[in-house]
Amino acid sequence: MFRIGNGIDFHKLIHEPFRPLMLAGVEVKSEYAFLGHSDADVILHAVSDAILGALSLGDIGQHFPDTDPSIKNMDSSVITKKCISLITERGWKLVNVDCTYVGDLPKINPIRSELIQSLANILSLPLDCVSIKATTSEGMGALGRSEGVMVMATVLLEKSSKK
Amino acid sequence: MFRIGNGIDFHKLIHEPFRPLMLAGVEVKSEYAFLGHSDADVILHAVSDAILGALSLGDIGQHFPDTDPSIKNMDSSVITKKCISLITERGWKLVNVDCTYVGDLPKINPIRSELIQSLANILSLPLDCVSIKATTSEGMGALGRSEGVMVMATVLLEKSSKK
Amino acid sequence: MFRIGNGIDFHKLIHEPFRPLMLAGVEVKSEYAFLGHSDADVILHAVSDAILGALSLGDIGQHFPDTDPSIKNMDSSVITKKCISLITERGWKLVNVDCTYVGDLPKINPIRSELIQSLANILSLPLDCVSIKATTSEGMGALGRSEGVMVMATVLLEKSSKK
Repeated sequence: MFRIGNGIDFHKLIHEPFRPLMLAGVEVKSEYAFLGHSDADVILHAVSDAILGALSLGDIGQHFPDTDPSIKNMDSSVITKKCISLITERGWKLVNVDCTYVGDLPKINPIRSELIQSLANILSLPLDCVSIKATTSEGMGALGRSEGVMVMATVLLEKSSKK
Repeated sequence: MFRIGNGIDFHKLIHEPFRPLMLAGVEVKSEYAFLGHSDADVILHAVSDAILGALSLGDIGQHFPDTDPSIKNMDSSVITKKCISLITERGWKLVNVDCTYVGDLPKINPIRSELIQSLANILSLPLDCVSIKATTSEGMGALGRSEGVMVMATVLLEKSSKK
Repeated sequence: MFRIGNGIDFHKLIHEPFRPLMLAGVEVKSEYAFLGHSDADVILHAVSDAILGALSLGDIGQHFPDTDPSIKNMDSSVITKKCISLITERGWKLVNVDCTYVGDLPKINPIRSELIQSLANILSLPLDCVSIKATTSEGMGALGRSEGVMVMATVLLEKSSKK
Protein backbone atom coordinates (compact mmCIF):
# COMPACT_ATOMS: atom_id res chain seq x y z
CA MET A 1 0.00 0.00 0.00
CA PHE A 2 1.12 3.53 -0.76
CA ARG A 3 0.15 7.04 0.27
CA ILE A 4 1.38 10.42 -1.00
CA GLY A 5 1.53 13.72 0.80
CA ASN A 6 2.53 17.30 0.14
CA GLY A 7 3.65 20.18 2.32
CA ILE A 8 4.14 23.88 1.72
CA ASP A 9 5.81 26.30 4.10
CA PHE A 10 6.70 29.97 3.89
CA HIS A 11 8.99 31.96 6.15
CA LYS A 12 10.06 35.57 6.04
CA LEU A 13 13.76 36.33 5.82
CA ILE A 14 15.12 39.06 8.05
CA HIS A 15 18.55 40.66 8.40
CA GLU A 16 19.46 39.36 11.81
CA PRO A 17 23.05 38.26 12.32
CA PHE A 18 22.35 37.03 15.85
CA ARG A 19 19.48 34.63 15.15
CA PRO A 20 20.56 31.29 13.68
CA LEU A 21 19.31 30.54 10.16
CA MET A 22 18.12 26.94 10.29
CA LEU A 23 17.55 24.81 7.18
CA ALA A 24 16.96 21.07 7.23
CA GLY A 25 18.36 20.98 10.75
CA VAL A 26 21.60 22.75 9.78
CA GLU A 27 22.65 26.07 11.27
CA VAL A 28 23.62 27.97 8.11
CA LYS A 29 26.15 30.78 8.37
CA SER A 30 24.30 33.89 7.27
CA GLU A 31 23.60 37.50 8.16
CA TYR A 32 19.95 36.59 7.66
CA ALA A 33 17.51 34.41 9.55
CA PHE A 34 14.00 33.14 9.06
CA LEU A 35 11.30 34.72 11.18
CA GLY A 36 9.06 32.35 13.12
CA HIS A 37 7.85 31.17 16.47
CA SER A 38 9.86 27.93 16.39
CA ASP A 39 13.31 27.88 14.77
CA ALA A 40 11.48 28.57 11.47
CA ASP A 41 13.16 25.69 9.61
CA VAL A 42 11.13 25.97 6.42
CA ILE A 43 12.40 22.69 4.97
CA LEU A 44 11.62 20.62 8.06
CA HIS A 45 8.19 22.23 8.34
CA ALA A 46 7.23 21.44 4.73
CA VAL A 47 8.50 17.86 5.07
CA SER A 48 6.67 17.40 8.39
CA ASP A 49 3.41 18.62 6.90
CA ALA A 50 3.82 16.30 3.91
CA ILE A 51 4.30 13.32 6.23
CA LEU A 52 1.24 14.22 8.30
CA GLY A 53 -0.78 14.84 5.15
CA ALA A 54 0.05 11.48 3.62
CA LEU A 55 -1.59 9.75 6.59
CA SER A 56 -4.36 12.31 7.17
CA LEU A 57 -3.04 13.16 10.60
CA GLY A 58 -3.65 16.92 10.44
CA ASP A 59 -0.88 19.49 10.07
CA ILE A 60 1.99 20.84 12.12
CA GLY A 61 -0.03 23.91 13.11
CA GLN A 62 -2.47 21.54 14.79
CA HIS A 63 0.16 19.36 16.48
CA PHE A 64 2.52 22.23 17.32
CA PRO A 65 0.45 25.44 17.59
CA ASP A 66 2.52 28.61 17.34
CA THR A 67 0.61 29.95 20.36
CA ASP A 68 2.30 27.28 22.49
CA PRO A 69 5.12 28.95 24.46
CA SER A 70 6.96 25.59 24.80
CA ILE A 71 7.56 25.68 21.04
CA LYS A 72 9.26 29.08 21.12
CA ASN A 73 12.54 28.75 19.19
CA MET A 74 12.02 24.95 19.23
CA ASP A 75 14.39 22.76 17.26
CA SER A 76 12.17 21.68 14.34
CA SER A 77 13.90 18.32 14.05
CA VAL A 78 11.87 17.40 17.14
CA ILE A 79 8.71 18.16 15.14
CA THR A 80 9.86 16.10 12.16
CA LYS A 81 10.92 13.14 14.29
CA LYS A 82 7.53 13.22 16.05
CA CYS A 83 5.84 13.07 12.61
CA ILE A 84 8.00 10.09 11.67
CA SER A 85 7.06 8.32 14.89
CA LEU A 86 3.36 8.96 14.15
CA ILE A 87 3.62 7.11 10.84
CA THR A 88 5.86 4.34 12.20
CA GLU A 89 3.38 3.63 14.99
CA ARG A 90 0.77 2.98 12.31
CA GLY A 91 2.98 0.52 10.43
CA TRP A 92 3.98 2.89 7.61
CA LYS A 93 7.43 3.81 6.42
CA LEU A 94 8.78 6.71 4.45
CA VAL A 95 9.97 5.81 0.93
CA ASN A 96 11.32 9.11 -0.38
CA VAL A 97 11.15 12.86 0.17
CA ASP A 98 11.57 15.54 -2.48
CA CYS A 99 11.76 19.26 -1.66
CA THR A 100 11.74 22.32 -3.87
CA TYR A 101 13.05 25.50 -2.28
CA VAL A 102 11.97 28.76 -3.93
CA GLY A 103 14.02 31.73 -2.83
CA ASP A 104 16.99 33.96 -3.45
CA LEU A 105 18.71 33.75 -0.08
CA PRO A 106 20.35 31.75 1.28
CA LYS A 107 21.67 30.02 -1.84
CA ILE A 108 21.19 26.28 -1.56
CA ASN A 109 23.80 25.00 -4.00
CA PRO A 110 26.88 25.58 -1.79
CA ILE A 111 25.22 23.92 1.21
CA ARG A 112 23.08 21.31 -0.53
CA SER A 113 25.10 18.23 0.48
CA GLU A 114 25.15 19.28 4.09
CA LEU A 115 21.39 19.93 4.12
CA ILE A 116 20.58 16.61 2.46
CA GLN A 117 22.86 14.72 4.87
CA SER A 118 21.15 16.38 7.82
CA LEU A 119 17.64 15.79 6.46
CA ALA A 120 18.44 12.14 5.74
CA ASN A 121 19.71 11.74 9.31
CA ILE A 122 16.59 13.30 10.81
CA LEU A 123 14.35 11.11 8.63
CA SER A 124 16.51 7.96 9.01
CA LEU A 125 16.51 7.59 5.22
CA PRO A 126 19.38 6.73 2.87
CA LEU A 127 20.80 9.70 0.94
CA ASP A 128 19.36 8.52 -2.38
CA CYS A 129 15.83 8.87 -0.98
CA VAL A 130 16.21 12.51 0.09
CA SER A 131 16.24 15.45 -2.31
CA ILE A 132 16.49 19.21 -1.90
CA LYS A 133 16.21 21.22 -5.11
CA ALA A 134 16.34 24.99 -5.45
CA THR A 135 14.95 27.57 -7.80
CA THR A 136 13.90 31.22 -7.69
CA SER A 137 10.79 33.11 -8.71
CA GLU A 138 13.00 34.99 -11.21
CA GLY A 139 12.57 38.26 -9.37
CA MET A 140 8.78 38.10 -9.32
CA GLY A 141 6.61 38.83 -6.31
CA ALA A 142 7.50 38.77 -2.64
CA LEU A 143 9.85 35.81 -3.02
CA GLY A 144 11.55 37.65 -5.91
CA ARG A 145 12.13 40.65 -3.64
CA SER A 146 13.84 38.30 -1.17
CA GLU A 147 11.18 38.93 1.46
CA GLY A 148 11.25 35.24 2.27
CA VAL A 149 11.23 31.73 0.88
CA MET A 150 8.80 28.92 0.17
CA VAL A 151 9.43 25.19 0.30
CA MET A 152 7.20 22.52 -1.23
CA ALA A 153 7.79 18.92 -0.19
CA THR A 154 6.26 15.69 -1.45
CA VAL A 155 6.56 12.33 0.26
CA LEU A 156 5.73 8.75 -0.59
CA LEU A 157 4.84 6.28 2.17
CA GLU A 158 4.60 2.50 1.95
CA LYS A 159 3.12 -0.25 4.09
CA SER A 160 3.77 -3.90 3.56
CA SER A 161 0.50 -5.48 2.43
CA LYS A 162 1.06 -8.33 4.91
CA LYS A 163 0.66 -5.95 7.84
CA MET B 1 -0.49 0.23 -11.31
CA PHE B 2 -0.31 3.71 -9.86
CA ARG B 3 -0.63 7.29 -11.10
CA ILE B 4 -0.08 10.59 -9.29
CA GLY B 5 -1.66 13.95 -9.97
CA ASN B 6 -1.51 17.49 -8.67
CA GLY B 7 -3.90 20.43 -8.71
CA ILE B 8 -3.55 24.11 -7.86
CA ASP B 9 -6.40 26.58 -7.53
CA PHE B 10 -6.57 30.22 -6.55
CA HIS B 11 -9.64 32.25 -5.64
CA LYS B 12 -10.00 35.84 -4.54
CA LEU B 13 -11.64 36.53 -1.21
CA ILE B 14 -14.20 39.34 -1.07
CA HIS B 15 -16.18 40.87 1.75
CA GLU B 16 -19.63 39.69 0.80
CA PRO B 17 -21.90 38.54 3.63
CA PHE B 18 -24.64 37.42 1.24
CA ARG B 19 -22.63 35.05 -0.96
CA PRO B 20 -21.94 31.65 0.61
CA LEU B 21 -18.28 30.80 1.25
CA MET B 22 -17.88 27.23 0.04
CA LEU B 23 -14.95 25.00 1.06
CA ALA B 24 -14.78 21.26 0.41
CA GLY B 25 -18.53 21.27 -0.15
CA VAL B 26 -19.27 22.97 3.19
CA GLU B 27 -20.99 26.33 3.47
CA VAL B 28 -18.71 28.08 5.93
CA LYS B 29 -20.15 30.89 8.08
CA SER B 30 -18.21 33.98 7.10
CA GLU B 31 -18.58 37.61 6.15
CA TYR B 32 -16.34 36.76 3.23
CA ALA B 33 -16.79 34.68 0.11
CA PHE B 34 -14.62 33.44 -2.73
CA LEU B 35 -15.08 35.12 -6.08
CA GLY B 36 -15.69 32.86 -9.04
CA HIS B 37 -18.02 31.81 -11.81
CA SER B 38 -19.02 28.54 -10.12
CA ASP B 39 -19.34 28.39 -6.33
CA ALA B 40 -15.55 28.99 -6.23
CA ASP B 41 -14.84 26.04 -3.95
CA VAL B 42 -11.07 26.24 -4.10
CA ILE B 43 -10.51 22.88 -2.36
CA LEU B 44 -12.83 20.93 -4.65
CA HIS B 45 -11.32 22.61 -7.71
CA ALA B 46 -7.75 21.71 -6.76
CA VAL B 47 -8.74 18.12 -5.94
CA SER B 48 -10.71 17.79 -9.19
CA ASP B 49 -7.78 19.03 -11.24
CA ALA B 50 -5.44 16.61 -9.47
CA ILE B 51 -7.75 13.69 -10.29
CA LEU B 52 -8.00 14.70 -13.96
CA GLY B 53 -4.24 15.26 -14.11
CA ALA B 54 -3.40 11.83 -12.73
CA LEU B 55 -5.18 10.22 -15.69
CA SER B 56 -4.24 12.84 -18.30
CA LEU B 57 -7.87 13.79 -18.85
CA GLY B 58 -7.35 17.54 -19.17
CA ASP B 59 -8.35 20.06 -16.50
CA ILE B 60 -11.55 21.42 -15.00
CA GLY B 61 -11.33 24.56 -17.16
CA GLN B 62 -11.60 22.29 -20.18
CA HIS B 63 -14.43 20.12 -18.81
CA PHE B 64 -16.29 22.97 -17.12
CA PRO B 65 -15.41 26.22 -18.95
CA ASP B 66 -16.19 29.35 -16.95
CA THR B 67 -17.80 30.83 -20.06
CA ASP B 68 -20.56 28.20 -19.74
CA PRO B 69 -23.65 29.88 -18.23
CA SER B 70 -24.92 26.53 -16.91
CA ILE B 71 -21.96 26.46 -14.52
CA LYS B 72 -22.80 29.85 -12.97
CA ASN B 73 -22.78 29.39 -9.16
CA MET B 74 -22.61 25.62 -9.74
CA ASP B 75 -22.13 23.32 -6.78
CA SER B 76 -18.52 22.20 -7.28
CA SER B 77 -19.20 18.79 -5.74
CA VAL B 78 -20.90 18.00 -9.06
CA ILE B 79 -17.56 18.75 -10.77
CA THR B 80 -15.60 16.58 -8.35
CA LYS B 81 -18.04 13.67 -8.60
CA LYS B 82 -17.86 13.87 -12.39
CA CYS B 83 -14.05 13.63 -12.15
CA ILE B 84 -14.39 10.58 -9.90
CA SER B 85 -16.74 8.93 -12.39
CA LEU B 86 -14.24 9.62 -15.20
CA ILE B 87 -11.54 7.65 -13.38
CA THR B 88 -13.88 4.89 -12.19
CA GLU B 89 -15.09 4.30 -15.76
CA ARG B 90 -11.47 3.61 -16.70
CA GLY B 91 -10.99 1.06 -13.91
CA TRP B 92 -9.01 3.31 -11.57
CA LYS B 93 -9.67 4.13 -7.96
CA LEU B 94 -8.58 6.96 -5.73
CA VAL B 95 -6.14 5.92 -2.97
CA ASN B 96 -5.63 9.15 -1.03
CA VAL B 97 -5.93 12.92 -1.35
CA ASP B 98 -3.79 15.50 0.42
CA CYS B 99 -4.51 19.24 0.29
CA THR B 100 -2.52 22.23 1.46
CA TYR B 101 -4.52 25.44 1.90
CA VAL B 102 -2.47 28.66 1.88
CA GLY B 103 -4.40 31.63 3.19
CA ASP B 104 -5.28 33.81 6.15
CA LEU B 105 -9.07 33.68 5.95
CA PRO B 106 -11.11 31.70 6.63
CA LYS B 107 -9.12 29.86 9.28
CA ILE B 108 -9.18 26.12 8.62
CA ASN B 109 -8.41 24.73 12.05
CA PRO B 110 -11.85 25.33 13.64
CA ILE B 111 -13.65 23.79 10.65
CA ARG B 112 -11.12 21.16 9.59
CA SER B 113 -13.06 18.08 10.76
CA GLU B 114 -16.19 19.25 9.00
CA LEU B 115 -14.32 19.96 5.76
CA ILE B 116 -12.54 16.60 5.79
CA GLN B 117 -15.80 14.76 6.50
CA SER B 118 -17.47 16.53 3.60
CA LEU B 119 -14.56 15.96 1.21
CA ALA B 120 -14.42 12.27 2.17
CA ASN B 121 -18.15 11.97 1.46
CA ILE B 122 -17.84 13.62 -1.94
CA LEU B 123 -14.88 11.41 -2.85
CA SER B 124 -16.35 8.24 -1.26
CA LEU B 125 -13.08 7.76 0.62
CA PRO B 126 -12.49 6.77 4.25
CA LEU B 127 -11.47 9.64 6.53
CA ASP B 128 -7.91 8.37 6.90
CA CYS B 129 -7.35 8.82 3.16
CA VAL B 130 -8.39 12.50 3.07
CA SER B 131 -6.26 15.34 4.38
CA ILE B 132 -6.67 19.12 4.50
CA LYS B 133 -3.72 21.02 5.93
CA ALA B 134 -3.40 24.77 6.32
CA THR B 135 -0.62 27.30 6.35
CA THR B 136 -0.11 30.97 5.49
CA SER B 137 2.36 32.87 3.38
CA GLU B 138 3.45 34.64 6.60
CA GLY B 139 2.13 37.99 5.40
CA MET B 140 4.00 37.88 2.08
CA GLY B 141 2.48 38.72 -1.27
CA ALA B 142 -1.15 38.79 -2.34
CA LEU B 143 -2.04 35.78 -0.18
CA GLY B 144 -0.36 37.49 2.76
CA ARG B 145 -2.55 40.57 2.21
CA SER B 146 -5.61 38.27 2.43
CA GLU B 147 -6.53 39.02 -1.20
CA GLY B 148 -7.35 35.36 -1.65
CA VAL B 149 -6.20 31.81 -1.08
CA MET B 150 -4.43 29.01 -2.90
CA VAL B 151 -4.93 25.28 -2.54
CA MET B 152 -2.55 22.60 -3.78
CA ALA B 153 -3.81 19.02 -3.90
CA THR B 154 -2.01 15.78 -4.68
CA VAL B 155 -3.73 12.48 -5.38
CA LEU B 156 -2.65 8.87 -5.78
CA LEU B 157 -4.65 6.50 -8.01
CA GLU B 158 -4.42 2.72 -8.21
CA LYS B 159 -5.60 0.08 -10.66
CA SER B 160 -5.53 -3.62 -9.96
CA SER B 161 -2.96 -5.16 -12.29
CA LYS B 162 -5.43 -7.95 -13.14
CA LYS B 163 -7.72 -5.49 -14.93
CA MET C 1 9.56 0.11 -6.10
CA PHE C 2 8.28 3.64 -6.54
CA ARG C 3 9.61 7.16 -6.10
CA ILE C 4 7.84 10.51 -6.42
CA GLY C 5 9.27 13.88 -7.35
CA ASN C 6 8.14 17.46 -7.75
CA GLY C 7 9.42 20.42 -9.72
CA ILE C 8 8.60 24.12 -9.73
CA ASP C 9 9.79 26.64 -12.28
CA PHE C 10 9.11 30.32 -12.82
CA HIS C 11 9.89 32.43 -15.87
CA LYS C 12 9.20 36.06 -16.62
CA LEU C 13 7.14 36.88 -19.68
CA ILE C 14 8.34 39.72 -21.88
CA HIS C 15 6.93 41.39 -24.98
CA GLU C 16 9.45 40.23 -27.52
CA PRO C 17 8.12 39.19 -30.94
CA PHE C 18 11.55 38.07 -32.11
CA ARG C 19 12.40 35.59 -29.36
CA PRO C 20 10.64 32.22 -29.66
CA LEU C 21 8.23 31.34 -26.86
CA MET C 22 8.99 27.72 -26.00
CA LEU C 23 6.61 25.49 -24.03
CA ALA C 24 7.00 21.72 -23.67
CA GLY C 25 9.36 21.79 -26.64
CA VAL C 26 6.87 23.59 -28.90
CA GLU C 27 7.59 26.99 -30.43
CA VAL C 28 4.33 28.78 -29.64
CA LYS C 29 3.26 31.67 -31.87
CA SER C 30 3.18 34.70 -29.62
CA GLU C 31 4.24 38.32 -29.34
CA TYR C 32 5.64 37.32 -25.97
CA ALA C 33 8.53 35.17 -24.87
CA PHE C 34 9.87 33.78 -21.60
CA LEU C 35 13.04 35.37 -20.29
CA GLY C 36 15.87 33.02 -19.42
CA HIS C 37 19.40 31.91 -20.06
CA SER C 38 18.38 28.72 -21.88
CA ASP C 39 15.25 28.70 -24.06
CA ALA C 40 13.29 29.26 -20.79
CA ASP C 41 10.91 26.35 -21.41
CA VAL C 42 9.15 26.49 -18.05
CA ILE C 43 7.29 23.20 -18.53
CA LEU C 44 10.39 21.21 -19.46
CA HIS C 45 12.32 22.76 -16.59
CA ALA C 46 9.69 21.83 -13.99
CA VAL C 47 9.42 18.29 -15.37
CA SER C 48 13.21 17.89 -15.45
CA ASP C 49 13.53 19.01 -11.85
CA ALA C 50 10.77 16.60 -10.79
CA ILE C 51 12.59 13.70 -12.47
CA LEU C 52 15.90 14.59 -10.82
CA GLY C 53 14.16 15.08 -7.49
CA ALA C 54 12.48 11.68 -7.54
CA LEU C 55 15.90 10.03 -7.65
CA SER C 56 17.74 12.54 -5.46
CA LEU C 57 20.05 13.51 -8.30
CA GLY C 58 20.15 17.25 -7.57
CA ASP C 59 18.39 19.86 -9.69
CA ILE C 60 18.71 21.34 -13.17
CA GLY C 61 20.53 24.38 -11.83
CA GLN C 62 23.26 22.02 -10.61
CA HIS C 63 23.43 19.94 -13.81
CA PHE C 64 22.95 22.89 -16.18
CA PRO C 65 24.16 26.05 -14.40
CA ASP C 66 22.90 29.27 -15.98
CA THR C 67 26.41 30.65 -15.77
CA ASP C 68 27.45 28.08 -18.39
CA PRO C 69 27.74 29.86 -21.77
CA SER C 70 27.15 26.56 -23.64
CA ILE C 71 23.58 26.55 -22.27
CA LYS C 72 22.76 30.01 -23.65
CA ASN C 73 19.45 29.67 -25.56
CA MET C 74 19.79 25.89 -25.24
CA ASP C 75 16.95 23.68 -26.40
CA SER C 76 15.56 22.48 -23.05
CA SER C 77 14.48 19.13 -24.51
CA VAL C 78 18.18 18.26 -24.33
CA ILE C 79 18.02 18.89 -20.57
CA THR C 80 14.89 16.78 -20.14
CA LYS C 81 16.26 13.90 -22.23
CA LYS C 82 19.45 13.97 -20.17
CA CYS C 83 17.35 13.68 -17.01
CA ILE C 84 15.48 10.72 -18.50
CA SER C 85 18.77 9.03 -19.34
CA LEU C 86 19.98 9.57 -15.76
CA ILE C 87 17.02 7.63 -14.40
CA THR C 88 17.12 4.94 -17.10
CA GLU C 89 20.79 4.27 -16.38
CA ARG C 90 19.79 3.48 -12.80
CA GLY C 91 17.09 1.01 -13.84
CA TRP C 92 14.11 3.31 -13.23
CA LYS C 93 11.34 4.26 -15.60
CA LEU C 94 8.92 7.15 -15.68
CA VAL C 95 5.29 6.16 -14.97
CA ASN C 96 3.42 9.44 -15.37
CA VAL C 97 3.92 13.20 -15.38
CA ASP C 98 1.37 15.80 -14.33
CA CYS C 99 1.93 19.55 -14.78
CA THR C 100 -0.03 22.54 -13.56
CA TYR C 101 0.66 25.80 -15.39
CA VAL C 102 -0.27 28.98 -13.52
CA GLY C 103 -0.39 32.04 -15.75
CA ASP C 104 -2.47 34.29 -17.94
CA LEU C 105 -0.39 34.22 -21.12
CA PRO C 106 -0.02 32.31 -23.30
CA LYS C 107 -3.35 30.53 -22.94
CA ILE C 108 -2.81 26.77 -22.77
CA ASN C 109 -6.21 25.47 -23.86
CA PRO C 110 -5.85 26.17 -27.62
CA ILE C 111 -2.39 24.57 -27.73
CA ARG C 112 -2.79 21.88 -25.08
CA SER C 113 -2.89 18.87 -27.44
CA GLU C 114 0.21 20.03 -29.25
CA LEU C 115 2.11 20.60 -25.99
CA ILE C 116 1.13 17.21 -24.57
CA GLN C 117 2.10 15.45 -27.79
CA SER C 118 5.50 17.16 -27.73
CA LEU C 119 6.09 16.45 -24.05
CA ALA C 120 5.11 12.79 -24.50
CA ASN C 121 7.59 12.54 -27.39
CA ILE C 122 10.40 14.08 -25.37
CA LEU C 123 9.67 11.78 -22.43
CA SER C 124 8.97 8.68 -24.60
CA LEU C 125 5.70 8.19 -22.72
CA PRO C 126 2.24 7.33 -24.05
CA LEU C 127 -0.19 10.26 -24.22
CA ASP C 128 -2.31 8.97 -21.35
CA CYS C 129 0.66 9.28 -18.99
CA VAL C 130 1.34 12.96 -19.72
CA SER C 131 -0.81 15.82 -18.46
CA ILE C 132 -0.64 19.60 -18.75
CA LYS C 133 -3.30 21.49 -16.86
CA ALA C 134 -3.73 25.26 -16.66
CA THR C 135 -5.11 27.74 -14.21
CA THR C 136 -4.54 31.36 -13.22
CA SER C 137 -3.89 33.17 -9.96
CA GLU C 138 -7.19 35.02 -10.59
CA GLY C 139 -5.45 38.32 -11.02
CA MET C 140 -3.51 38.09 -7.77
CA GLY C 141 0.18 38.85 -7.36
CA ALA C 142 2.92 38.94 -9.97
CA LEU C 143 1.45 36.01 -11.91
CA GLY C 144 -1.92 37.79 -11.89
CA ARG C 145 -0.28 40.87 -13.40
CA SER C 146 1.02 38.64 -16.21
CA GLU C 147 4.63 39.30 -15.20
CA GLY C 148 5.35 35.62 -15.80
CA VAL C 149 4.20 32.09 -15.19
CA MET C 150 4.84 29.19 -12.82
CA VAL C 151 4.70 25.49 -13.54
CA MET C 152 4.53 22.73 -10.95
CA ALA C 153 5.20 19.18 -12.09
CA THR C 154 4.91 15.88 -10.24
CA VAL C 155 6.30 12.59 -11.47
CA LEU C 156 6.04 8.95 -10.45
CA LEU C 157 8.92 6.54 -11.14
CA GLU C 158 8.90 2.76 -10.96
CA LYS C 159 11.55 0.05 -10.84
CA SER C 160 10.85 -3.62 -11.24
CA SER C 161 11.52 -5.27 -7.88
CA LYS C 162 13.50 -8.02 -9.62
CA LYS C 163 16.20 -5.55 -10.61
